[in-house]
Amino acid sequence: MTNTPTARTRAKRFHDRARYDAETVHAILDAQPNCTVAYVIDGTPYATPTLQWREGDTIYWHGSSASRMLRKSANHQVCVSVMLFDGMVMARSAFNHSCNYRSVTAFGQAFIVTDPAEKRARLDTFVETLFPGRTKLLRPMLDQEIKATTILGLKLDEVSAKIRADDPEDEAADYALPIWAGVIPFALTAGEIRPDPRLIDGTPMPDHVASYKIG
Amino acid sequence: MTNTPTARTRAKRFHDRARYDAETVHAILDAQPNCTVAYVIDGTPYATPTLQWREGDTIYWHGSSASRMLRKSANHQVCVSVMLFDGMVMARSAFNHSCNYRSVTAFGQAFIVTDPAEKRARLDTFVETLFPGRTKLLRPMLDQEIKATTILGLKLDEVSAKIRADDPEDEAADYALPIWAGVIPFALTAGEIRPDPRLIDGTPMPDHVASYKIG
Repeated sequence: MTNTPTARTRAKRFHDRARYDAETVHAILDAQPNCTVAYVIDGTPYATPTLQWREGDTIYWHGSSASRMLRKSANHQVCVSVMLFDGMVMARSAFNHSCNYRSVTAFGQAFIVTDPAEKRARLDTFVETLFPGRTKLLRPMLDQEIKATTILGLKLDEVSAKIRADDPEDEAADYALPIWAGVIPFALTAGEIRPDPRLIDGTPMPDHVASYKIG
Repeated sequence: MTNTPTARTRAKRFHDRARYDAETVHAILDAQPNCTVAYVIDGTPYATPTLQWREGDTIYWHGSSASRMLRKSANHQVCVSVMLFDGMVMARSAFNHSCNYRSVTAFGQAFIVTDPAEKRARLDTFVETLFPGRTKLLRPMLDQEIKATTILGLKLDEVSAKIRADDPEDEAADYALPIWAGVIPFALTAGEIRPDPRLIDGTPMPDHVASYKIG
């Protein structure tokens, strides 16, 4: 499936960086749980960082039912932005400095998941998407926890990706200059895992923790 | 200086995570150049990832003068969101999973920097903020490059920070369960630097490249 670009998703510049196919969009969404949800209250923009997960052609995000972001964006237009920062691109002129990145922008009306059984299933999938096998280890979700959680979804009907993964692109004449240029790659990297100080002695670290990666 | 929280910036939940002092806000902005700018076109929200830099009480971002984001947010309300993802927080229940992070949210009307000399100074500061000493090494900016660049600014008058930097917080009874809990810390980490294949032989790598860090 390839989305047809709309007025909101069609790249205005750098057309060679734009992608509209589901494979590219899904790969970026699956590689980066962090996202920023933009929404409008009284005509002014708000942006809130949160986590997203994907099930088929839909992304979801969640939080406390008391969250302003969730209350104000449910059944309203949102723009969800997901970005992996892949590096600083150092050129021979200030003008041609750039970044390498993979990003997705999705537009549409957020819907709210209301059925408690469906909410439970979506939250289980969220946990399993991040940490395969974890739901079976956890203390089961309580009904009041389901109730206290709001889940919003967005169908990926109006979505685009943008990718830059290149060396610097300098002006032709600038390549003759003895100025250092290149790429400083970046990735979100896991550091040393810190077991909870209150962990019961001997509790094994699951593989979904030890091997957890982003990107 | 501590900002007085407004209706837009006052934390609605997790009050203990909220900060309104300039020191905290500036430290987060200075640690993470990546940001997401949210703006409104025809009543619907847009979110665009870009880079920001700070000069005193103002943050700036820039891009091509042809950029939709810059044209549509100049002299309009924006919300700039900056976030450092510091880790996955694994709890004993799905409900108490969380993230460690440092975030800033700034609201206000974006202004446009129009004077060419001021634009040049701002762009020099941008380069120097990221890479101290680099402006002196680069091919000087051309007037047409200044003209082709739009710079927007936002005074940090209505801004808040949010920080979570803790172990999991589980329900009291759940601490008795033999379930692995803890923190998987994350950071944006530089990988192996890739000199441009077209670099002139013998061009030394500057220290601002070799030692460049985010976070």
